[in-house]
This record gives sequence, structure tokens and C-alpha cells, in this order.
Amino acid sequence: MERLDVALGDRAYPIYIGAGLLQRARDLLGARLSEQTLIVSNTVVAPWYREQLLEGLSDIPVRTLIIEDGEQHKTLETLNSIITRLLEQRFNRTCTLVALGGGVIGDVTGFAAACYQRGVNYVQVPTTLLAQVDSAVGGKTAVNHRLGKNMIGAFHQPVAVLSDTDTLATLPARELRAGVAEIIKYGLINDAEFFGWLEHNMDGLLRRDPACLTHAIAVSCRNKASIVARDEREDGVRALLNLGHTFGHAIETALNYQIWLHGEAVAAGMAMAAHLSVQTTGFPAAEARRVNALLQQAELPTTLPDGLSCAQLRELMSVDKKARHGQLRLVLLEEIGKAVVTADFEEADLEATLRVFTG
Amino acid sequence: MERLDVALGDRAYPIYIGAGLLQRARDLLGARLSEQTLIVSNTVVAPWYREQLLEGLSDIPVRTLIIEDGEQHKTLETLNSIITRLLEQRFNRTCTLVALGGGVIGDVTGFAAACYQRGVNYVQVPTTLLAQVDSAVGGKTAVNHRLGKNMIGAFHQPVAVLSDTDTLATLPARELRAGVAEIIKYGLINDAEFFGWLEHNMDGLLRRDPACLTHAIAVSCRNKASIVARDEREDGVRALLNLGHTFGHAIETALNYQIWLHGEAVAAGMAMAAHLSVQTTGFPAAEARRVNALLQQAELPTTLPDGLSCAQLRELMSVDKKARHGQLRLVLLEEIGKAVVTADFEEADLEATLRVFTG
Repeated sequence: MERLDVALGDRAYPIYIGAGLLQRARDLLGARLSEQTLIVSNTVVAPWYREQLLEGLSDIPVRTLIIEDGEQHKTLETLNSIITRLLEQRFNRTCTLVALGGGVIGDVTGFAAACYQRGVNYVQVPTTLLAQVDSAVGGKTAVNHRLGKNMIGAFHQPVAVLSDTDTLATLPARELRAGVAEIIKYGLINDAEFFGWLEHNMDGLLRRDPACLTHAIAVSCRNKASIVARDEREDGVRALLNLGHTFGHAIETALNYQIWLHGEAVAAGMAMAAHLSVQTTGFPAAEARRVNALLQQAELPTTLPDGLSCAQLRELMSVDKKARHGQLRLVLLEEIGKAVVTADFEEADLEATLRVFTG
Repeated sequence: MERLDVALGDRAYPIYIGAGLLQRARDLLGARLSEQTLIVSNTVVAPWYREQLLEGLSDIPVRTLIIEDGEQHKTLETLNSIITRLLEQRFNRTCTLVALGGGVIGDVTGFAAACYQRGVNYVQVPTTLLAQVDSAVGGKTAVNHRLGKNMIGAFHQPVAVLSDTDTLATLPARELRAGVAEIIKYGLINDAEFFGWLEHNMDGLLRRDPACLTHAIAVSCRNKASIVARDEREDGVRALLNLGHTFGHAIETALNYQIWLHGEAVAAGMAMAAHLSVQTTGFPAAEARRVNALLQQAELPTTLPDGLSCAQLRELMSVDKKARHGQLRLVLLEEIGKAVVTADFEEADLEATLRVFTG
């Protein structure tokens, strides 16, 4: 097991990563739990892991709320149903919520914890690789609005995160790879050594070797934590975490959030960012080939699906960012392990990259 | 005009108090506003004061959202309608919300600001005396759930508060007096000199003399701010602000939140707390008579409406607090200007007080 402490002011918390952690929940979480504990999970995850977690919590009395699976349930209505259950159980401000599931469960449960009586404790027990390396660190919680994703939310740090690699056993292979895309991202923006490690250990990751997973998750969380700690409210360097995401969001929007998973769009977006970086920052072409090779080793897309046009993607990228800064800023690579946020690129180079990828 | 700076860490903000402030909004708020500003108000307040505020904001482009008046609209649905408007206007994270109204408008608008894109700025422009002396300080925002008031919310400090005493001109006399109850509370718990000032200036307050109002609001806010600054997340001394409130909530619940205003129930609750204090803390009976006399000068109730029973109130007080501490704690007076939170009182004394007041 690895333990990582996320230092965020007076709200520092531990992340435990390894195999067999659900069974040790009582030991690991200890005083961070409450006499009033509610597990929130979904219809897919609960049948696999709820019993294990309950056993692991042993003598602590625990209630469970099961919600439907899927992004379409990340809503104020679901938030309200969690609050209703807390009030029906007469839970007070010392209660603890436990989010057992992927990003949707974590986001909506975390937001419920942020809001209930103006803030109660919660524990993240992420059961997807993406959630373990991304949403477990940073304290972002939210629900969607019909006019925009994650538009209603809060920054609220968990009191602990329990990332049990055993829970990845039931994760569909495609979702595992989508999580790997974000892992690769951390190497690219912040950690050349880790990128090298990934080049040698991708096979182990894809066959879910517990030691490989534990290391990759721990290093990913450490990289994210170091960035988030410098920029908790997301005003500056945290933007580096968006490597591949401006391209990726344009792809996802063009595909109407169907067909591709988020991590797949980010993978293609990173390939595009690497390509543009070669034109813009002097990122060596040979290094861009390493990026593509690693993404392909992870069986992630490095080309776009048919039917997307250069003009459409450019327009979507523009709308995405115009609303925020009035100017398109991208995360580009200077080296493997060193990314920059910049508006200093030629429009012609961006369009050339889009043309290459839209064929 | 008085200016008071509420020192709450990196989220310090000014409260401006005085006559004619709406007209000076642009000058006073200046850089705290944004190119994207939304006023949220209600159907009662907006017809009186929206135009004045718009004129005061002069060249700043401002949108307005008018919601229905009343506590029954302090809901997640109203929150959602504010978020919808912000998204329809493509407001970004640099936008500013302006709450123009009483406590309901302040609470729901403040909560919308806390949640929108995980937190944007807001300005409080309270138009009731209660809001000016209470919710303007402390950063508590919330909406109600059908199973409990203020159960969904956040601590989120405004960037500024503009308390224009002119807006009290249209406040019903009974609501004015309900605000005075909270003003008296600050004298009782923290400020004997202010209590003395109130004994000499109650007539000026009730006839809405701007200088009297400005002083009373400023001193109230200063007292509340000094308590909140010591206890922003409400774990300790902030409980002193509940003087009269445990009795008051029991009264309000027994009356099903009809008939009496919150401030009226708090007034009677303070009379009861003073009575019990005489038995418990050695609070002098002569001082308890001063408390009653000042409440009566403010035309506030110091006796209970018919039909409430001792047993019913005792039970309601118990339920209210059992959920939180397992033990009934009350705010009692040691002197005028010095309150304590204590569980150290005889049950028989409490019941004697309840019997006296329920006749």
C-alpha cells in the first residue's frame, strides 16, 4: 500500500492506494468516520463492492443510498435525494458521507457533503481508474445543469481517499484505458521520469498488475496534488491539467458526448497538442513520436473519428474559451515533463494541426 | 455613512451603512463589480428599489432576475432558476451577483454565488433591518429542504454589503421591530454600552431616524463580526448569537412558523432566557426587568401567545438540540453585555420558567 498526504492548508488528507483496502477500511479511516455514516453508490458498483466495504467498516453502523448509474444522474435532483436521506436519518453536522463509485458518484456525493448543513465530512472510495487518478485529488465537486456540465458545485476536500486497486478488476477495459490517458497526461506535463516508467510498464498497467497500478495511481495523485496545492482555487498553474482537454472537449462536443469516452478524447487531444507544440514551442518531433507511441501502446486513439471538420473543431474550441478569457489559450509541451499555458501560437499552425487530424 | 470592515481571513469585505447609498453604488462598489452583473430581487422589493440601484450603478451593464417573495421560495428550484439565468447570459466565473432584498433573497442568491462554477462574487444589498444586522455578516447562505430549514447551503462571504437605511422606509413596522429584536440581542450578549444607548434611543429607531438606524446597524454588525471572526465555521462562541433562539425556535415550531415573525419569537425567547438566568447564573432580577422594559419599549412580545403548553415547548427544545449535541445547551445571561453557553442549569428551573411564560 502507498500513502500520500495531500497538503491543502488546514484541510490536508491522506490518499491510501493499494490492493485489499476495502477490507481494511475501518483501520485506515478510523476516527475520520462518524457514528452517522452514509455510503452513496450506484446500481453498477454497489452489487460488486458494497458488501466488502461494509465488512471492512465492521462495527460502524452504516446506511446506504443507491442511485442510478450514469452521467445523466449527476443533477440537483440526485443531490436533493441524498439530502433527503440524510434528513430522514436525522444525520447531523458530524456525519460522514462515503462515495463508493466513479466520478459521477464522487462528484455528486462530494457536493452533497459540501452543502449539507453547510458542510460535512466525506470519504472518496473511487472505483474507476479515472476517478482514482483525477477526481480523488483537488476537491472539485459538482452536478450538471442542462446548459452546462459541472456548473453547480463547490471546492470541498474529502477527509480521506481509499483507492483500492482490486475494485478495478470489474472495470471495462475501455474505461481502464481512458484512465490511463490521464495518467499519461501527468507524465507529459510534470514528470518525465514517470513518462519513461510508463513506456516500460504499460503492459503491466493494462493487465491490471496491482503493483503497477498502485505505483501509477500514487505518482499521478502526487503530481496532481503538487499542482493543486499551488493553485487550489484554479486560477493559475492548475490550467496545466487541461493538457489535451481543449482539443478533447471540442471533440466530445462535436460527437455530442457519445461514441468516445472523455479519456479517449483527451488522448487524441494530447496527440494534437504534441503536434502543435512541434510547430510552436520547439518541442522535438522525436518526442512527439514518443507521445504517440505511448498512447498507442495504451490502445488509445491518436487520430480522430471520421466526419469531424477542421472548421467545426476550431469553432468549438473558440466558443469553449471565449466565454472565459476572450482569448484562446492552450496547454502545449516544451519537453516531455514540461507543459506551458500559452496564447502565443500562430492561428495558421493551429489550423494546420486541425487539418492534419481531420484528414 | 459608516464603513465597517469584516475581517475574515483572505475574504475580508466592507459593509457600508447609511442613507442614500443605492445612488452611490458605483462609487462604493467600484472594482468589486464585474462587466457581468446580475441583480436578484423579488416582486415586493424590486418595484421600490431596483431603479434606484440601477441608476446608482450607472454605466455598469446589469441584468435583473425577479423571483417570487416569501420563505417558501427559498428552495433548490429557485437556486436552479438563478443558475439557469447565469448560463443563458453566458456569465463566467468573474461575474457578480447582487442580492437586493431581505434574508430570503440574500440567502438564496448567496448560495447561488457559492455554487455557480464553484464560486463567484456577490454583493449583499439588504433591504430589511433583520438582514442588515444579521445575514449581512457571517457568510451563511442556504436554501430550505422540505424536512428542514437552511439544510442545504454554504459559507460564502460577500465581497461587499450595502445597507441603505432609506430602503427601510417601506418596511412594515412589525418587520422593523423584528429587526430591532436582533439588535437588542447584540447589546445583551456582547455590549452593555450599546444596550444603554438603545434604552435612550429606541424611539428614534422606531421612527426610523437615519442617524439612529445607521449607528444601531453599524454597532450590531461590529458585534456580530467580532464573534463570527473568532468562529467562522460555527463551532464555538458563535453559539452566543443564539440567545433567545432555542426558546424562540420552539415557539416558532409550536406556532407552525405562522402568526409570529422570527424576531418576535426571539424577543419572547430573550425574555425567557433572562428569567431563567436569574435562577441560574445569578443574573440580577433588576437587570432582567431592564431587558423586559427595553423589549416592551420596542413593542416586542415578552409573553407567549395563548395555547402553548410547558410540556410542548420543553419537548420541542429537546428535539431541536438533541439532534446536535445529545444535551440541551442554552445561551444565558450573566450580565447585560455578557452571555454564556451552558448546559449547567437545573431542569426544574427551566420548567419553572416555561410554566411562568405559558401561564
